[in-house]
Amino acid sequence: MIGFGNVGQAFAKLLISRRGWLRETYGLEVEVLAISTRTRGSLLPNMAIDLSQVLGMLEKGGTFRDSLPGYVDLSPIEILEACDANVMVELTTLNIGSGQPAIDHIRKALSRGMHVVTANKGPLAYAYDELSSLARSRGLQFRFEGTVMDGTPVFNLVERTLPGCEVEGVRGLLNSTSNYVLTEMSRGKSMEDVLSDAVRLGFAEADPSLDVDGWDAAAKITVLANVLMGAGSTPNEVDRAGIRGIDPESVRKAAASGMKYKLVASAEKAEGDVRTCVRPELVGPEDLFWSVDGRSSAITLKTDLMGEISVVEHDPSIMQTAYAIYSDLLLIAESLKAF
Amino acid sequence: MIGFGNVGQAFAKLLISRRGWLRETYGLEVEVLAISTRTRGSLLPNMAIDLSQVLGMLEKGGTFRDSLPGYVDLSPIEILEACDANVMVELTTLNIGSGQPAIDHIRKALSRGMHVVTANKGPLAYAYDELSSLARSRGLQFRFEGTVMDGTPVFNLVERTLPGCEVEGVRGLLNSTSNYVLTEMSRGKSMEDVLSDAVRLGFAEADPSLDVDGWDAAAKITVLANVLMGAGSTPNEVDRAGIRGIDPESVRKAAASGMKYKLVASAEKAEGDVRTCVRPELVGPEDLFWSVDGRSSAITLKTDLMGEISVVEHDPSIMQTAYAIYSDLLLIAESLKAF
Repeated sequence: MIGFGNVGQAFAKLLISRRGWLRETYGLEVEVLAISTRTRGSLLPNMAIDLSQVLGMLEKGGTFRDSLPGYVDLSPIEILEACDANVMVELTTLNIGSGQPAIDHIRKALSRGMHVVTANKGPLAYAYDELSSLARSRGLQFRFEGTVMDGTPVFNLVERTLPGCEVEGVRGLLNSTSNYVLTEMSRGKSMEDVLSDAVRLGFAEADPSLDVDGWDAAAKITVLANVLMGAGSTPNEVDRAGIRGIDPESVRKAAASGMKYKLVASAEKAEGDVRTCVRPELVGPEDLFWSVDGRSSAITLKTDLMGEISVVEHDPSIMQTAYAIYSDLLLIAESLKAF
Repeated sequence: MIGFGNVGQAFAKLLISRRGWLRETYGLEVEVLAISTRTRGSLLPNMAIDLSQVLGMLEKGGTFRDSLPGYVDLSPIEILEACDANVMVELTTLNIGSGQPAIDHIRKALSRGMHVVTANKGPLAYAYDELSSLARSRGLQFRFEGTVMDGTPVFNLVERTLPGCEVEGVRGLLNSTSNYVLTEMSRGKSMEDVLSDAVRLGFAEADPSLDVDGWDAAAKITVLANVLMGAGSTPNEVDRAGIRGIDPESVRKAAASGMKYKLVASAEKAEGDVRTCVRPELVGPEDLFWSVDGRSSAITLKTDLMGEISVVEHDPSIMQTAYAIYSDLLLIAESLKAF
């Protein structure tokens, strides 16, 4: 595991709670062999890491150096070179400008013969074609369900349940913080108050620019366009506007006429190219997105053979992101069994 | 292919149009070896059937006896005994009282070593446990995505993209004719007029009881409960009320207060059992289902690890049912390749 923040810790808790079930139902024993963190040092014992011990230590505010077995002062790349895991789980934080160093972590893991699971949008937004080719050429799996809408099936939906179907367009509410802010503003709060609440509750970053300026949504629509529509694009190519310019008066006026502002991300084919866009739109109640409030998110896929289908995630917590990693890991385990 | 009505013919057209793509992308050659119909006789030539010829004949109002090669006067069971196909596609019409004779067709196909794809709810509503055990014991696939919400991923979604997740409850708008009738009534039409329009347009049965009395929705929620929640129940155990009792005055009143009637089918765990229910409910615009109008349908799955997710199918046509068969067939082809 490269990165062990909120998502990594939630995933570790999920692994612990499902250990018996995994053994009985899948015949699967999941052992974490190494954990690399940016601020706490890294662990690389020559045995499975005791996740409960690690989580307990972190809860008490401790660092890895204190008393955990296998403490090492190695970089993520050095950890990947020294470790013989089957799977690398990449959970470092998003670098919206380049996707690094996560791209390097994934390159290294694949070149070392590890399958890769990530919830980090950066590598998909900046290097999807390269990394997926590398994985394919090595017969390895590269899974990333958690990059968009947490563990809600989007990429796995298209790959595993819509065979032979081409995605021609995508439209979604992909940034839950923006959606939460707009919902609370429609109830009379100011954007500043809502954002500071969100930071306090732990689901928005201290720097809200990624969310309110549409960068997070831009990264996600880029990932969708790259993976589902072969766009080969980056977040910089998204025609992007966030919610920062929306004032309380506009929200009130919209509400008075039964409308809501939503931050809509979209991708569509146009003249042999894929055009991506993030911008606030006014939607009425006849639009599916009208009812998708708060931290919920939604996506509509326009396909050639199956027409339009939508998927909605209702009121997610960190557990749904942890499930994304968990489900990708199980899909890898299943495929290894099948061959 | 057992049954060759609207869905079977749409599937045949899809197969013809994708033949080149299937060959190039999947290395897959799909040949239809036999077609059995209730009223037009059957075809069992000792070669692949020319689907274009069959469709052309039917368009001109002809029957199989006229001039098609391989005409035989055999029952579906006799066809299955005489034919050596890899896959049987069951598309006979729903028998809401027993699921027969489709159950016998599927039993026979599985016992002859054929994988099975069906869009027929009956066998799943009356004999899911038996048929799925039989398939498993023979190492065969039994796929039925088309039984609920056409080709929209529901069963394949849970099976293939939500590993390790348990479904704890289901709530859906599953009968498109009822939804269409309620939508049109809210625009001032009478139920009788809407139904006769629907019959004329070819998407409702001449006998509307299956739809307006909630039997179709009851069959579907039974299938969902059986497959996703291990209910082992039948449509007769559903607490069922259809839309027949809803008068124009009630619909008008609801609309005046911003509400809509929707025929909601649900399944939930209760005291070690699964309780299934179909009944009209009043929903407001904050409910996702409010915006799901006309022939669209929707389902919300409540799960243990992924919280609540919904899937919506927008304005389907017969092509989306054909895609259900097609996608199940491709999933079978993929799994045969993998082993």
